[in-house]
Amino acid sequence: MHVGILGAGQLARMMAEAGGPLGLSFSFLDPSADACAGELGRLYVGQWDDSSALQALAECDRVTADFENVPAAVLARLAEQVAVRPPARAFAAGQDRLEEKALLEGLGIPVAPVAAVNTRPDLLAAVERIGLPAVLKTRRLGYDGKGQAVLESHEDLEPAWQRLGGQALILEGWIDFDFECAQTAVRSASGEVRCYPLTRTVHSDGILRLAASPAGVSAELAGQASAAVTTLLEALDYVGCLTLELFAAGSELIANEYAPRPHNSAHWTIEGAVTSQFENHLRAVCDLPLGSAAARGVALMFNWLGAMPERAKLLAVPGLAWHDYHKQPRPGRKVGHATLVAADQASLSEALEALKPLLDRDTAGLLGRLG
Amino acid sequence: MHVGILGAGQLARMMAEAGGPLGLSFSFLDPSADACAGELGRLYVGQWDDSSALQALAECDRVTADFENVPAAVLARLAEQVAVRPPARAFAAGQDRLEEKALLEGLGIPVAPVAAVNTRPDLLAAVERIGLPAVLKTRRLGYDGKGQAVLESHEDLEPAWQRLGGQALILEGWIDFDFECAQTAVRSASGEVRCYPLTRTVHSDGILRLAASPAGVSAELAGQASAAVTTLLEALDYVGCLTLELFAAGSELIANEYAPRPHNSAHWTIEGAVTSQFENHLRAVCDLPLGSAAARGVALMFNWLGAMPERAKLLAVPGLAWHDYHKQPRPGRKVGHATLVAADQASLSEALEALKPLLDRDTAGLLGRLG
Repeated sequence: MHVGILGAGQLARMMAEAGGPLGLSFSFLDPSADACAGELGRLYVGQWDDSSALQALAECDRVTADFENVPAAVLARLAEQVAVRPPARAFAAGQDRLEEKALLEGLGIPVAPVAAVNTRPDLLAAVERIGLPAVLKTRRLGYDGKGQAVLESHEDLEPAWQRLGGQALILEGWIDFDFECAQTAVRSASGEVRCYPLTRTVHSDGILRLAASPAGVSAELAGQASAAVTTLLEALDYVGCLTLELFAAGSELIANEYAPRPHNSAHWTIEGAVTSQFENHLRAVCDLPLGSAAARGVALMFNWLGAMPERAKLLAVPGLAWHDYHKQPRPGRKVGHATLVAADQASLSEALEALKPLLDRDTAGLLGRLG
Repeated sequence: MHVGILGAGQLARMMAEAGGPLGLSFSFLDPSADACAGELGRLYVGQWDDSSALQALAECDRVTADFENVPAAVLARLAEQVAVRPPARAFAAGQDRLEEKALLEGLGIPVAPVAAVNTRPDLLAAVERIGLPAVLKTRRLGYDGKGQAVLESHEDLEPAWQRLGGQALILEGWIDFDFECAQTAVRSASGEVRCYPLTRTVHSDGILRLAASPAGVSAELAGQASAAVTTLLEALDYVGCLTLELFAAGSELIANEYAPRPHNSAHWTIEGAVTSQFENHLRAVCDLPLGSAAARGVALMFNWLGAMPERAKLLAVPGLAWHDYHKQPRPGRKVGHATLVAADQASLSEALEALKPLLDRDTAGLLGRLG
């Protein structure tokens, strides 16, 4: 079976790594000629609407994506010729923060108060209604904290408007969260849903840096997360893996956004779960039975940004698994990750003690936020 | 770091699958244009002595092999230009059954009685000394039970001689074994050795079919196996993974042969150990720290011969991991494997009950031989 993937970044690369052993082969479409998944299949270099590349993808057995901002219209057009999974509507709703919030709210999943902002008067009215602090965000094409401005006081409004105004925006109420977490689940075409354990995440400058699983929350909170993601998957008639990002505030989880693809917060599943998110995404996309989403021990994932750290020392840490995406270094770029896996928290803590002195100060400093 | 591999079969393929995440890239030399690892790197098609391909391999950072019968002279010549690991002498000794047995015996590792057979009178004299039953084998180029004849009585001598005579042979005393097992270990260039748990193996027609780990033997037998493989690795000043195949007979382990490469009996380590044999082989070859060879639960591996079975049903079995080598079907050919992993024997047995009805009769029948 041959799978076409829109996007050939690290998520596509890890899909291909998981899919090869399943007997799958891959073609990719990506605007960049050196996209890192290209080594593991056939790479078509072109824009998302490149008609000859899309024709090649339409001839695959299945099409999926590694990027949430592939134009939903492109996916909808492809879906006339080939099974496209997840469905285009999951991308469409997720690509507009206002629609996304409305969808979640309509499903009874708690979200922050939100208002559309197209003009300066809109912004003032929204601030009046929602209060400060709040976050002004572009409705489209935001990821990794890009296209956002935090408004602490009325003095922040004009600079934020200067920077972001002139495009469709939303104002979102500030959530005074205890911590962030992410719920990944997979749904098959026949409607079976399997939820991974809830993962606790740590972001810095809007970029995910650490992911720890299990999240160490009450059974009640974990149940809220899996119920919410299941509701969402069913509403979208979704096929594949999806991650719902959540704020934990007191006894409540408040949904932030979802990603209709494998997600950075669940990279730990490669070693830390019976079946990785990448394999389960492909199993769902290809109509194969879903694998178990149960954990194998406990896991803690570190993102490597900018350039890969020196592997020789880090690989000596017991239970550390290495993932180099084969990308050129560039400041802030996600170039790889590592996952520490252990049978239990005590063994993980022990390995973490060996790892800590080898971490850059920035990463080591984030560990304190895991609580 | 770029690694050259002599051979591009499934072992090279699984090395490349393990090495990509470590940041390694690969070139292969193989006589076959459709060798299955070729998808995961640059494939040079040529004989083992193809000078332009060997020049390309010599320009890699390291060279290793996925096939024990690559001419040792080729490896020795390459070693003048690039670090070749495992060392050529490990291949040289392993390529001649008589030398191999002498090496093992010289190290105090028990082996079957053996005699060189070059003529009919040699054969008669060897049978006189060693007795029957015995096994007549070619000294070179044997694998998967090829180039062997079992001699039960004197009537078997002439047909065996007709089939195998005219080349250098050995006669080996028959070992009345209880079961077969295999000990895999990895050694770094700095001399560190890590042993995987002993694995119990089941062969049919000389081809490995099942591998179960742990082997379920006494601590004493397990200690014998790890001591033997450690002695051998040190004697060869070995770097990389090696597997020693053993017969368990009463309270003794008798060495049969070794393979200077990752080995079929340790494929279960991909999911069943903290670090797979493929990753540890590459870590050793590339001077990276060795990973833990400890098990993660219990594992049972099935080889798929001839053609891949229907994956849709088998993938529904909890904890079953799939490995399709992307090879064309051919009778008897190793085209893939699957590994059942579980936290403990009870969970493994439960999953095995779900798996059994889905297995072909031949494979299911072999399960009884696991004891």
